[in-house]
Amino acid sequence: MGSTTVVTGIGVSPGRVVAPAAHLPEAVAEPPAGRRLPPGADTEAAAARVAEAAEDVRAGLDAAAEAAEGASAALLFATAAMAADPSLVADAQERVRVDHLVPERAVWEAADAVAAQLAELGGYLAERVRDIHDVRDRLVARLTGRPAPGLPALPHPYVLVAHDLAPALTATLDPARVLAVVTTAGGPTSHTAILARARGIPAVVAAAGAAGVAEGTTLLVDGAAGTVTLDPSDDVVQRVRALAAAVRTFDGEGRTADGQRVELLANVGDPAEAEAAAASGAQGVGLFRTEFAFLDRTEAPTVEEQVAAYGRVLAAFEGRKVVVRTLDAGADKPLPFLRAAPEANPALGVRGLRVAETHPHVLEDQLTAIARAAADHPGTTTWVMAPMVATVDEAEGFVAACARHGLGTAGIMIEVPSAALLAAPMLAHAAFASVGTNDLTQYTMAADRLLGAVARLSDAWQPAVLRLVEMAAAGGAAQGRPVGVCGEAAADPALAVVLVGLGVTSLSMTPRALPDVAAVLAATTSQECRRLARLAVTAPGADHARSVVRGGLTVLDELGL
Amino acid sequence: MGSTTVVTGIGVSPGRVVAPAAHLPEAVAEPPAGRRLPPGADTEAAAARVAEAAEDVRAGLDAAAEAAEGASAALLFATAAMAADPSLVADAQERVRVDHLVPERAVWEAADAVAAQLAELGGYLAERVRDIHDVRDRLVARLTGRPAPGLPALPHPYVLVAHDLAPALTATLDPARVLAVVTTAGGPTSHTAILARARGIPAVVAAAGAAGVAEGTTLLVDGAAGTVTLDPSDDVVQRVRALAAAVRTFDGEGRTADGQRVELLANVGDPAEAEAAAASGAQGVGLFRTEFAFLDRTEAPTVEEQVAAYGRVLAAFEGRKVVVRTLDAGADKPLPFLRAAPEANPALGVRGLRVAETHPHVLEDQLTAIARAAADHPGTTTWVMAPMVATVDEAEGFVAACARHGLGTAGIMIEVPSAALLAAPMLAHAAFASVGTNDLTQYTMAADRLLGAVARLSDAWQPAVLRLVEMAAAGGAAQGRPVGVCGEAAADPALAVVLVGLGVTSLSMTPRALPDVAAVLAATTSQECRRLARLAVTAPGADHARSVVRGGLTVLDELGL
Repeated sequence: MGSTTVVTGIGVSPGRVVAPAAHLPEAVAEPPAGRRLPPGADTEAAAARVAEAAEDVRAGLDAAAEAAEGASAALLFATAAMAADPSLVADAQERVRVDHLVPERAVWEAADAVAAQLAELGGYLAERVRDIHDVRDRLVARLTGRPAPGLPALPHPYVLVAHDLAPALTATLDPARVLAVVTTAGGPTSHTAILARARGIPAVVAAAGAAGVAEGTTLLVDGAAGTVTLDPSDDVVQRVRALAAAVRTFDGEGRTADGQRVELLANVGDPAEAEAAAASGAQGVGLFRTEFAFLDRTEAPTVEEQVAAYGRVLAAFEGRKVVVRTLDAGADKPLPFLRAAPEANPALGVRGLRVAETHPHVLEDQLTAIARAAADHPGTTTWVMAPMVATVDEAEGFVAACARHGLGTAGIMIEVPSAALLAAPMLAHAAFASVGTNDLTQYTMAADRLLGAVARLSDAWQPAVLRLVEMAAAGGAAQGRPVGVCGEAAADPALAVVLVGLGVTSLSMTPRALPDVAAVLAATTSQECRRLARLAVTAPGADHARSVVRGGLTVLDELGL
Repeated sequence: MGSTTVVTGIGVSPGRVVAPAAHLPEAVAEPPAGRRLPPGADTEAAAARVAEAAEDVRAGLDAAAEAAEGASAALLFATAAMAADPSLVADAQERVRVDHLVPERAVWEAADAVAAQLAELGGYLAERVRDIHDVRDRLVARLTGRPAPGLPALPHPYVLVAHDLAPALTATLDPARVLAVVTTAGGPTSHTAILARARGIPAVVAAAGAAGVAEGTTLLVDGAAGTVTLDPSDDVVQRVRALAAAVRTFDGEGRTADGQRVELLANVGDPAEAEAAAASGAQGVGLFRTEFAFLDRTEAPTVEEQVAAYGRVLAAFEGRKVVVRTLDAGADKPLPFLRAAPEANPALGVRGLRVAETHPHVLEDQLTAIARAAADHPGTTTWVMAPMVATVDEAEGFVAACARHGLGTAGIMIEVPSAALLAAPMLAHAAFASVGTNDLTQYTMAADRLLGAVARLSDAWQPAVLRLVEMAAAGGAAQGRPVGVCGEAAADPALAVVLVGLGVTSLSMTPRALPDVAAVLAATTSQECRRLARLAVTAPGADHARSVVRGGLTVLDELGL
């Protein structure tokens, strides 16, 4: 047993795998400025090549989108649409015809002009700059005869090591080939992290030390612990492989070792995900995000369209519970019909329930549609909750609006710190609460969840965040109301134990995490949950909290988590 | 006594005045696109007019800056520099020479090009767009022979009513002519609010109903209550005038009616403000912002420069205490030598103490300079504190860094919710804490303090914020450490009572608020402070908390507050 090197990052998608490292190929280089067609060249033919390349790239992305589903498919279709954007193609062709630029340089400049416009618009649109650059690189690669930027073509499965991943790339990862993802940048709630979790690929982000790993080095990636071990010993490798072979299943009911029930629910973003979640044995849906019904639309969907869309999700959970979250849009997730003004800090702006102040008809229509879908599916227990509730007045007003639509079980998301602090008075009005740990962490630590530079703060293990979860649960207990967690934290089996110990009554997560969370809870008594929760809350920091709890949970090692 | 109309907004600068309303003149209109010089016109003469107008506007702003001081002067100098920016002038002249645009249209387009560049850079720079538009309007007015955009020229004092005020305009307000400011937009911590407070002008913002007030209507503005009464009765007018005549003074020691001491300190931003604060009788400086030493510099100031600058502030408070806050910069307050990357949500990014991770030498140099200035002024008690502390590790690290420089009394700002929640473990390391209510409110409510659309949430009276202040004070009491407040909240006499009741041991504010806060505290027992604090913390909302506490403080009415 020689010494081993361990690179530490942030574990964002659980699971342990062993495989050789493969670095993502270098980015497409910028074609030299001013590179022009030779004198006398056929500019029309060169311009035509731009359109052909755009069509090829679009077709390839569309095909990948067809093969994907849910959020992945939506992202790919969006990127494909960018590639075929007629104004982008026309601008590039103009640069070929007028400036006589070579097609790859013309595409580069036209894409950068689009990127500059997006950056100028700020906020959410500025974040789309990376997608435009992804399209640009695919077009330039196609035009210069290079392989499409993207995954290494290796004959064996591997661990993908990269600086960061474009959403379109993450969405196309084949879990049979890419066994794990390690990035040197990114945070726990970056697109890379969210998509890796959605696809069930173990992932570690913000692992700066991984940049220097030699190609082909054997890596043990632990997506729960956030560690990457270089050249692990044979013993360790054998053990990981043996554990991976012992498949766990979820029997459809969550409970601690001493029989305390903990509802284990699924987070879903559209009907297809709901159907997959229902098959996974989830006891219900703890978070049904309704944004999918509103995306890529210039006008709000009609009530009828919404009734149909929500009905599919309710149908999938006949006999079980579905918690529908009303639209969470705003300047950071803009929708054309909401016409949100640009904001200097969109995460602190008009989003979630706040939009109902300026656009009350959107919430009214949505509540009408949810009520009708619920009436169409009386066998499903339909609850409704609002995002971004910050004051008692807002909680009271939302519950009253739901009651007017005949929706009798209305609750609130607890993701703004004030909602955790005021959980008791809020739950005097609301029937239940669900803690969104991602945003709650962002605001409690004043650290943007998408900003790599503050990723060490963006951690639901932060004791301050756990204290707010404890206050939220205590507020619920005082009013006799259930308080669940539907953030990413619920999918971390060790953190799930802590949350239950803090008094949380349900955990909602990506369906693939259900078996692991259920197995760890089943092996832990409620008293032990409380003891570990106390250790975590009083720990001096997030890393200490995580390690002291993991150290107290031998079942994690037994299960290879 | 007929019925009176009362328009409600947010009181941001206390004081009651009665005066006729005067609306700010309409904005300068955009010169029509494509308006060109007549054929054969002298383009060089037209181009020269651009340079002359820029020089005139610059000179006018510089003169106003010379007459102002502190933050107001800095803002005016910055706007003057923008007006004389050679690249702006050259771009406008180019548009005259090449496109034959009339000078005012050329200036308009050149300024908008600069604004677009700033907007593209995002964050703090995007907020400077309003300053560029201010410069543009002054230039266009000068070129078209219109009066400079700005204040009504009336023979009597008035209440200025506006949609919002440009910083340069607010900074030039003469309190003898503009008795109060009422804006229909803005939030409690907008530039308008901060500058009005700094200049001692009562102000109400976000008073949407004021837009329809007829010119010349008599208004009673209550800058503490946030109300604007139209055509108040003669009785009320007489009473307000009598109270205003009874000048209060501050005798240099804060205490409650039963003799409990409460340190009453000043917030200062540069040596000139410190000298004024010392003359006001402040018991010390509770917040010395050091940003002034770093602004408008391409390189960090040398240790020697900092020693001299800080020394002037320490000298002004010989025999008293000065709490120096280390540099609070970041993507929202960028400094060239920090090279901060653009961020989607700069308020949640790398700012305050977090910058020390990427640029440790800046903090090291600053601590060296503070230690040397403190050694030069042994008669002053010098304390140091760090902004944006979020974890116990950060608190411990900062205290250790101060100790290495011989700075024995090192503390933390409590402005991130996690710091309030973890005050006790943090104060096991830090010698004291100071609650920054502006940012603490922003993060606790997830509401951008500069965004008018969420201004109703941006209120330190929010019970959730008060609960965090209570936790911070309790954490201090548990460790035997003082916990003060240095945010805007401390300058509101009614809120000051609540803060003392929550266990806060010192209040630091704009010096002109000291007499009012001291007078209200002197009339209130510590038991009454605690009773009112309990009412505020358990109130269902900010407005209810404010009104129940104000209702319990008859002294406010007696003092006309």
